[in-house]
Amino acid sequence: MFSSKLLLAACLTLLFTCTSAYATEQSAMASWQDNGNSQRLKVFVANVSNESSNQFVAPADRIAVFDNDGTLWAEQPAYFQLYFALDQIKAMAAADPALAQRWQDKPLYKAALSGDLKAVAAYGEKGLLELVETSHSGMTTDQFEQSVNDWLSKATHPTTGKLYTEMVYQPMLELLDYLRANNFRIYIVSGGGIDFIRPWAEEVYGIPKENVIGSRISIKYGYIDGEPVIIRKPALDFIDDKAGKPVAIHQFIGKRPILAVGNSDGDLQMLEWTATNTKPSLNVYIHHTDAVREWAYDSDSHIGKLKQGLIDAKKNNWLVVDMKNDWLRVFPN
Amino acid sequence: MFSSKLLLAACLTLLFTCTSAYATEQSAMASWQDNGNSQRLKVFVANVSNESSNQFVAPADRIAVFDNDGTLWAEQPAYFQLYFALDQIKAMAAADPALAQRWQDKPLYKAALSGDLKAVAAYGEKGLLELVETSHSGMTTDQFEQSVNDWLSKATHPTTGKLYTEMVYQPMLELLDYLRANNFRIYIVSGGGIDFIRPWAEEVYGIPKENVIGSRISIKYGYIDGEPVIIRKPALDFIDDKAGKPVAIHQFIGKRPILAVGNSDGDLQMLEWTATNTKPSLNVYIHHTDAVREWAYDSDSHIGKLKQGLIDAKKNNWLVVDMKNDWLRVFPN
Repeated sequence: MFSSKLLLAACLTLLFTCTSAYATEQSAMASWQDNGNSQRLKVFVANVSNESSNQFVAPADRIAVFDNDGTLWAEQPAYFQLYFALDQIKAMAAADPALAQRWQDKPLYKAALSGDLKAVAAYGEKGLLELVETSHSGMTTDQFEQSVNDWLSKATHPTTGKLYTEMVYQPMLELLDYLRANNFRIYIVSGGGIDFIRPWAEEVYGIPKENVIGSRISIKYGYIDGEPVIIRKPALDFIDDKAGKPVAIHQFIGKRPILAVGNSDGDLQMLEWTATNTKPSLNVYIHHTDAVREWAYDSDSHIGKLKQGLIDAKKNNWLVVDMKNDWLRVFPN
Repeated sequence: MFSSKLLLAACLTLLFTCTSAYATEQSAMASWQDNGNSQRLKVFVANVSNESSNQFVAPADRIAVFDNDGTLWAEQPAYFQLYFALDQIKAMAAADPALAQRWQDKPLYKAALSGDLKAVAAYGEKGLLELVETSHSGMTTDQFEQSVNDWLSKATHPTTGKLYTEMVYQPMLELLDYLRANNFRIYIVSGGGIDFIRPWAEEVYGIPKENVIGSRISIKYGYIDGEPVIIRKPALDFIDDKAGKPVAIHQFIGKRPILAVGNSDGDLQMLEWTATNTKPSLNVYIHHTDAVREWAYDSDSHIGKLKQGLIDAKKNNWLVVDMKNDWLRVFPN
């Protein structure tokens, strides 16, 4: 009652599907140099995904965690979120002349308004956090998300002139794709703001909002004109950096990762924690070695300092990716 | 080159698959009375899952949030986590006679050790939280998980004699299955402890650890004998109740739910927040009306008080499930 033509069509479809899968496998991580480092990543992923391997890990436990600044997108000459904070401070001053006047008497804000990053940096982390608190609070969560989207759609990087979302790393986008194809559950675990990253993580990285973990400002549930809202308060709730990263991983995920990728000493505890997993695991450091296509920095950098991490990576045989030699391309087209 | 027998086998397989799917649809939510309330749930799920419906919601946004105590499992005559806390307090005293001696001078602990729930209750929420802090801290996260699993494997409910995990609601297990079959992403958002629920949520509810949100104790990353650990501290970090629920939903998920299910006034803000979703949404209250098979309580109860919630449910046409009339069965076999 069925024609053999129908069967043939079904077989051709199957053949096409198999061929596509093979082609995908061949083109996976196309921007990575085909060398020992990329092979190590692929072999790890293949083993934990292979049911007949003694390295097999069930998909539910294939948790991968990625730092964001300097790991998924660039972080030089300053964290991109700081440029956002400064632009917001300027917008606040422009909208409120009395406030702008008062800020002229506050050296930190005066430096911020004049765009003097060096003067701002002189106030250290405390000054930076104050500017973030001021510029990231006093509005609803919906309003803040809108302001992030508005800014990212037009703000450009001070030296490359690119949109910030164009300064993500092409090889890392391919690694994310490769992990997803192998049923990994991917989380961002960033020192940056959770609500600064969420608005664009799905579109840019394919990582949904619920899989973004980051530093948090205090928020409060309340009502405006009888309508429920969540208001952002000018106070830090949690800093997702250093020893905060394993804490946040436990609070948000409740499982140890099997793959952790970072680029600085701020990621060290996240990698340490991942290494305690009784299941097979891999730790990866992205080493910024390419002064031509990106930036070269590690142990002496004021941003993304990587000193102890390199020592521990060597001691523990973690994978250190050399951007200059391991990546055929840094940014997307 | 292919026999028609092979084709026939393929078709029979297909037919079987289709029949199974049909049977599953017919038997979905089998413990629910087939009436207007269960129909309303099914119609909502069908509409948001139907691409050609104007109520369609993409799977990524099909977020459902469930309270736990009184919504997914019972909560009478006291929260099950309190029985765990009291048993832990007793075990701590048994293991440390000097501590047991000191506790005899502290009325709250003396009441706890004698199992006098009424006397413990007289210390109000403050006393309850102190017992939770004391019994849930001072160990690693791994050790705590083990103690929860050990306790649940043998502790029994004071009036039914069942294991606590046998006191989950069969109709709710079926609702969770039905939502999963329609690609919902299900989260628990509980006033109970996140690390008390996570160890068993996957096995009992099919809800993975990363989808459990709850109240949190402070935790700290550190080292024991050079090995990284996360230590539980005797201090509350976050209470996931009332206005805390929308806050936690924002922090952990970052999206508004389209379905919220609770049973008390402590869930009211979670339902309010869900109703602000611009996508189609449904709010559900489970009303404890069955004094024979479970417990009957609402506006006057010391646990799971439901007063304002019923008023708001009526005003906003939220679905109120009547346990006595809507559930053919309450607990699994």
